Amino acid sequence: MTYRLECPVTGYQDTDVVMLAHGSGGESMQKLIAEMYAKAFPYLQSEHDAALINTDRYQLAFTTDSFVAKPPFFPGGDIGSLAVHGTVNDLVMRGSLPHWISVSFILEEGFPMKDLERIVLSIAEASKKAIVRIVTGDTKVIERSHEIPEILINTSGIGAMRDWKVLPEPKNVSVGNKVIVSGDIGRHGMALMSVRNGLELDPPILSDSMPLNEMGRGLYYYNINPNCMRDATRGGVAAVLNEIARSAKLHIRIDEEKVPVADDVRGLAEILGYDPLVLANEGRFVLFVKDEEAEHALEILHKCEGGEHAAIIGEVVGKHEMGLVTAKTLLGSEKPIHMPTGEILPRIC
Amino acid sequence: MTYRLECPVTGYQDTDVVMLAHGSGGESMQKLIAEMYAKAFPYLQSEHDAALINTDRYQLAFTTDSFVAKPPFFPGGDIGSLAVHGTVNDLVMRGSLPHWISVSFILEEGFPMKDLERIVLSIAEASKKAIVRIVTGDTKVIERSHEIPEILINTSGIGAMRDWKVLPEPKNVSVGNKVIVSGDIGRHGMALMSVRNGLELDPPILSDSMPLNEMGRGLYYYNINPNCMRDATRGGVAAVLNEIARSAKLHIRIDEEKVPVADDVRGLAEILGYDPLVLANEGRFVLFVKDEEAEHALEILHKCEGGEHAAIIGEVVGKHEMGLVTAKTLLGSEKPIHMPTGEILPRIC
Repeated sequence: MTYRLECPVTGYQDTDVVMLAHGSGGESMQKLIAEMYAKAFPYLQSEHDAALINTDRYQLAFTTDSFVAKPPFFPGGDIGSLAVHGTVNDLVMRGSLPHWISVSFILEEGFPMKDLERIVLSIAEASKKAIVRIVTGDTKVIERSHEIPEILINTSGIGAMRDWKVLPEPKNVSVGNKVIVSGDIGRHGMALMSVRNGLELDPPILSDSMPLNEMGRGLYYYNINPNCMRDATRGGVAAVLNEIARSAKLHIRIDEEKVPVADDVRGLAEILGYDPLVLANEGRFVLFVKDEEAEHALEILHKCEGGEHAAIIGEVVGKHEMGLVTAKTLLGSEKPIHMPTGEILPRIC
Repeated sequence: MTYRLECPVTGYQDTDVVMLAHGSGGESMQKLIAEMYAKAFPYLQSEHDAALINTDRYQLAFTTDSFVAKPPFFPGGDIGSLAVHGTVNDLVMRGSLPHWISVSFILEEGFPMKDLERIVLSIAEASKKAIVRIVTGDTKVIERSHEIPEILINTSGIGAMRDWKVLPEPKNVSVGNKVIVSGDIGRHGMALMSVRNGLELDPPILSDSMPLNEMGRGLYYYNINPNCMRDATRGGVAAVLNEIARSAKLHIRIDEEKVPVADDVRGLAEILGYDPLVLANEGRFVLFVKDEEAEHALEILHKCEGGEHAAIIGEVVGKHEMGLVTAKTLLGSEKPIHMPTGEILPRIC
């Protein structure tokens, strides 16, 4: 294996294999990014969901995301709308106005044409709503290896960077910043989980899958300059807070009581044994804003679709070399919120 | 199925399913693009492998491609280098200088970490050689459904448009243009096919997988303005010629004798019953140039790596409402070259 001699930098052993946890947004994925991708790709902007392209001529955001939703249709959305929202949201979080999207389908032989049509129409509708243009695409068909043929979708996207005073990114988060979540959390994770477990909830828990560009636009036009924005997808709010705490070497403290969670989501999460903070969202984000801008930001979010339950859930309380996230519990004590480990919710985003 | 009432435009029936042919670059894929994607996505630039983004501020090319190589390692390359070359080449063909690339991995649980590392290093090397930057990425892990765990890769890319007098695209091809192929054809298809069939050729047939940006740059800097360029991947040279003949309503005539095919490729293709014109290439392209520029273009290609066997293989002989491609055979008669139908070489690009 001469190639290992050429790059003996990764910590993996010859017998190591990829596990579901490597794709679930938590600790294992962070290790894979840091120990393999970041070392091999010198220009990878591994701390961001979208890359910033900043030259004399171009100021763009560029992102990619592959989607594996099982089942492809779920209460509140489908893999098509999810694929549009995921990429649009990554572009918004980087501080850009999303413009152009690519769609690449990987289909298993035997996938029903009517389901593909339904997904294609859902993509068309979602892109219209998010005001982005599908300009290029690709289709590959692979041999069938599942009883029910599956679909995978990759979307990539380009946004035009907005003209911020301070670029929203982890290194610009500072002590005293307030932490806001844009709405109630955990819907997407529980919507998928309820369908996958055959639970017939009435009414069903609907996914929060939605584009975040209205909220991004609202904040920008009212001169709110978030210090950082990050959508809370795989690994949920817990992963986002830990990533930013580590990256900016800060101690973030949240107040459990203030985290908005719908009653049905909280109920199902309790039954299944999940902390809502680790559940995936596809239309919710965490933003860090200066103390004096927090109330205004909240007011703007409350007026946007999907932002009705936005809340200030905590603040950056100090510096911390390793990064630390803690929560004031409902009982008044303080507990650590860890980076999620292992496989949290497989194959749902 | 109310969504069908909303869009009763596709010609597909409720019982139709996706078949391997829908991904193989031939007639079925053209139909899927025309009848579903092009109708649902009003901004899709479905006649091009890369989209042109042309605004006051931005002149960019944008493309996406998913890669499914079985096996992932083959003589002359691997799925990693292939994924870089495929996207770089689509950007070059559109007339741009490739700059920024995204990489998205979809891995089956159990995929060996050392194989992933080997592929990651191959991507790093290929992107260095092609002078493009991997700036953003994504990893998803799916449950294992194959005896040997598989890998899928999507790459998307952005290039800066060059300042052409005439944009290289099908509608600018005109009667009298010469048709050039940049090198000997069919290597990639036969390299994969030989490995998949367990043929132990000595020496093996090596894939032609390579970046085309040196050739693209050479033509541009010596003031050759191709009327159109298209890399001959899925469906091979036959698919490219038919696509352009249809799109520009032209009759293209080639001379079979002049099509460069290496002896080992021709031999294996004959044994397996394939016409080299339909075999996939991953480092070869077809270009249409004005008669008076043809010899100069050829001279430039001959000096580039991979262009040693470039040849003028035919010309655009007239207009044709439906588009027509014919070949002068070795016996001197003329035969039609059809758009490939059905599944030509599954899962190789």
